[in-house]
Amino acid sequence: MKLSELSTETGVSTASLKYYLRESLLAPGEPVTRTQSEYGPDHVERVRLIRALVESGGLSLAQVRRVIDALDSPTVPRHELLGVAQEALMDAERFDEDAEWTAVATTFVERRGWRIQDGDVLIPQLGAQLKALAETCDVGGRETLDRWADAAEIVAASDLDTLTDDDAQALRTAIVGTVLSDKVLQTLRRLAQQNRTGRLYEAARESGGSPGSNQ
Amino acid sequence: MKLSELSTETGVSTASLKYYLRESLLAPGEPVTRTQSEYGPDHVERVRLIRALVESGGLSLAQVRRVIDALDSPTVPRHELLGVAQEALMDAERFDEDAEWTAVATTFVERRGWRIQDGDVLIPQLGAQLKALAETCDVGGRETLDRWADAAEIVAASDLDTLTDDDAQALRTAIVGTVLSDKVLQTLRRLAQQNRTGRLYEAARESGGSPGSNQ
Repeated sequence: MKLSELSTETGVSTASLKYYLRESLLAPGEPVTRTQSEYGPDHVERVRLIRALVESGGLSLAQVRRVIDALDSPTVPRHELLGVAQEALMDAERFDEDAEWTAVATTFVERRGWRIQDGDVLIPQLGAQLKALAETCDVGGRETLDRWADAAEIVAASDLDTLTDDDAQALRTAIVGTVLSDKVLQTLRRLAQQNRTGRLYEAARESGGSPGSNQ
Repeated sequence: MKLSELSTETGVSTASLKYYLRESLLAPGEPVTRTQSEYGPDHVERVRLIRALVESGGLSLAQVRRVIDALDSPTVPRHELLGVAQEALMDAERFDEDAEWTAVATTFVERRGWRIQDGDVLIPQLGAQLKALAETCDVGGRETLDRWADAAEIVAASDLDTLTDDDAQALRTAIVGTVLSDKVLQTLRRLAQQNRTGRLYEAARESGGSPGSNQ
């Protein structure tokens, strides 16, 4: 198909497609004439992937590039799949390491009995995030953290079960699935909040109290 | 304190502080001389908040502005707190509404028994996210979604319990806490994935199988 048809098929403007081509996020088409190239199903799939990562995943083009590089690289050992996915997504999360809060994160992870690699960058990152939470809104005490970790364990178990036995598909699922499903989980959290808020408010109205007094 | 001292106290450059002042994200200081102003503890707190939202929360300055506007607005009814927080964060998530997938999201939420307001924008948003997941990596089937919803319910219950009885503090917690703790949850998910992957791999090695055969 022509570039204009690739645009119609994927819902991405030709201007954006040309940008993807210039930036090598998308492989060149098969030259047909001096000014025209032919694009196929692989191009459609790749464009849909880029679009999903940018629009639904909220990734920067620099992150999209890292995801694509990881996808295009030779087979990654199966047990490293999620690690590769995590690294591809890392730069959005720059942070200032804080020794005291890294220790808090380490203690928490140890108390949960989670096995984490030595020197794992996720630990200081978790520490920095907990520090920000504590400083700005006094949230993230031990009990809250434990409930969040319970939720994280449910999701991680599901993540591992989702990895198929097909390696090529598995990396794709690990990377793309993690990015996109982070968003789904955020939306589900907000819907579950609404459900709970609505119920509490209704219960309070029925009992004649103020909604605040029920929480 | 002087602007330079505010910078030292918060770890934010004077250039950034001047930008916050120009953009009215930060209230002007008390003029002391024609070229100098005096800043106080409220300024320190506000700068820390902006920094946390940008660095740890990954928000754009446009989103930070909406969060700040919501925080500065007169008291919001308690049961609307989380709704206001959700709206302040909404624009990052532009999406194309898809009637078929909105119906999938509606059915799912109904099956969970969640009470959601009519016309809630989160439903088509969830639909668009599920569509992206299904199209790009074939993830997000009914069983997976149910496990994610289980996790979301745990987090939402914790969210509601965290709201204090102090209204001013509650909005702050609802908005800032949601942004920052989304990030904490992402990190915990990745750590829990590592823990699980590590254990599976080890078990496979001990039994002499390949790691893949255990998953």
